[in-house]
Amino acid sequence: MSDTQTRVLFVKRPVGWVDETSFAVVREPVPEPGPADVLVRNLYLSVDPYLRGRMAGAFREGDVMVARGVGEVVASGHERWKPGDLVWGFLGWEQYTVIRRGEGLYPVDASLGVPISYYLDVLGMPGLTAWVGVHVLGRPEPGETVFVSSAAGAVGSIAGQLARLAGARAVGSAGSEAKVRHVVDVLGFDDCLDYKAEPSLPAALRRTCPAGIDVYFENVGGPLLEAVLGHMNPLGRLPVCGLISGYNATEDPGVKGFAHILGKRLTVTGFSIYDHMWRFEAWQPRMAELLTSGRIVYHEDVWEGVEQAPAAFIGMLRGDSLGKRVLRVG
Amino acid sequence: MSDTQTRVLFVKRPVGWVDETSFAVVREPVPEPGPADVLVRNLYLSVDPYLRGRMAGAFREGDVMVARGVGEVVASGHERWKPGDLVWGFLGWEQYTVIRRGEGLYPVDASLGVPISYYLDVLGMPGLTAWVGVHVLGRPEPGETVFVSSAAGAVGSIAGQLARLAGARAVGSAGSEAKVRHVVDVLGFDDCLDYKAEPSLPAALRRTCPAGIDVYFENVGGPLLEAVLGHMNPLGRLPVCGLISGYNATEDPGVKGFAHILGKRLTVTGFSIYDHMWRFEAWQPRMAELLTSGRIVYHEDVWEGVEQAPAAFIGMLRGDSLGKRVLRVG
Repeated sequence: MSDTQTRVLFVKRPVGWVDETSFAVVREPVPEPGPADVLVRNLYLSVDPYLRGRMAGAFREGDVMVARGVGEVVASGHERWKPGDLVWGFLGWEQYTVIRRGEGLYPVDASLGVPISYYLDVLGMPGLTAWVGVHVLGRPEPGETVFVSSAAGAVGSIAGQLARLAGARAVGSAGSEAKVRHVVDVLGFDDCLDYKAEPSLPAALRRTCPAGIDVYFENVGGPLLEAVLGHMNPLGRLPVCGLISGYNATEDPGVKGFAHILGKRLTVTGFSIYDHMWRFEAWQPRMAELLTSGRIVYHEDVWEGVEQAPAAFIGMLRGDSLGKRVLRVG
Repeated sequence: MSDTQTRVLFVKRPVGWVDETSFAVVREPVPEPGPADVLVRNLYLSVDPYLRGRMAGAFREGDVMVARGVGEVVASGHERWKPGDLVWGFLGWEQYTVIRRGEGLYPVDASLGVPISYYLDVLGMPGLTAWVGVHVLGRPEPGETVFVSSAAGAVGSIAGQLARLAGARAVGSAGSEAKVRHVVDVLGFDDCLDYKAEPSLPAALRRTCPAGIDVYFENVGGPLLEAVLGHMNPLGRLPVCGLISGYNATEDPGVKGFAHILGKRLTVTGFSIYDHMWRFEAWQPRMAELLTSGRIVYHEDVWEGVEQAPAAFIGMLRGDSLGKRVLRVG
């Protein structure tokens, strides 16, 4: 184990779109864990849209970027963990993280037959987010239409496949021709529109969802949300797990079509996976079984090296990712 | 029974605010019922905000204004009804209505100990609307804060009282000093703001709802909805049964603050009483008991004469009513 490591610090609160000046890549000594702490060597780190929100509020300038990761315990003063254990939890965009008293670490079961990086996505919080949005809130019936925005993304790509397994018709939205092909050809959605290329979103929805939309798995907000509100069927459900189109906005343009919520008796539910962490233990083996049996397919977009984190994150906010973006720590 | 009657016809689809030119008050012959029809002499007629929506779409120019009413059967070719029976259902702004094959008529039980006009409001669809919004969708816990817009109106005045009976703190919004006094002094809400007089709605909500809002019973939309979204507590619920502020709008300004639905994990549910008609039979005796025991108080704003319907309706849309507006048919 070397004495110094690479870290990505958060150094400047962004206004509008994030750029590289919000980050500093530095070399610093690997910290010494206290007697009850756990030192983790980070193996995979997560790059997620929600970090944009933290950069507007919770993160303090000068701190390391905190993000989910999978790692290996190298030193532990906590009885639950010993060197060599694989764990996941909130680590940081760095090579080594000290977890005070081991708090917030969860076990990684390498015997489930899936890559351990999946604990950052399909077998972790994005996967459970898709599950809750589809099965707890959306509850599609066979034959209903489920429309999924960010369908090529970490959550959307799973949500659509879960909807299909429930007997529904899954239609996605994505932001490039390559993503649209991926969503239909690889992920198996019934159809997908390219929201950047369509001259009219309402017309695109009428074409791809001719029977209307019963469940909208909402990741983006903005004009697509407005078009979807107009195309929802009565008594439709809209689980909202992200509004990425607004994350970099400095002004709120408002959402038109709110009256459809009344007129069509819709249910719009914002949700956070933090209210559902108790589901993990029972859910992970079920999800692993869907993966190993091939009923759910999954695609990771793996970047090499923690120093790539700022570029990977900025690009993802601008929509250049295909599947879940993950960093392999060198 | 006279041979002619007074009727209010819908003659011109309004653009923006409704005025008298949308209506014509005429004298016409009382129609002859067919062999299976029911002829009802109308006793009380309802004046409701939702009619504005029907005037934009479902109503045909030249037809009588269809509205809920309570009446007495004067002739019947239907085995379920005989002359002298009291009924409620969709009658019209007229003195006599023919109901084809008696469809959509419900019995009025004069023995419940409340005025029969209550079947148009507290013991009818507005009352059940309040009940569903509070008990099925809002589900306030004791100690939570329930905020009710149009608190002096037909639905809001009941919703706040039901919230208090459930142990919650009820705070209203109304549009005049007289209404605010009525909501607090007569209906017993814990507090009420005058949305027309407050210089800042967010500040008014902080003052009247210092612990935040857990349930928003939504009747109005617009700037008040936007202020409430900012003042909701996490995991709050927003049953939406009306958006009266937008009913006369020709453009949709959008709703700002939609991101609070995600950030605070809110549930926004549009609902219509037509999805809950099956509840009436079990619910009416329970509601009548709350009224006769004095635990719910109710105030009707009774106008005399069917020819007053246009003025009563136009004024109500502009906010001049205190309690449910009802016409007594001369």
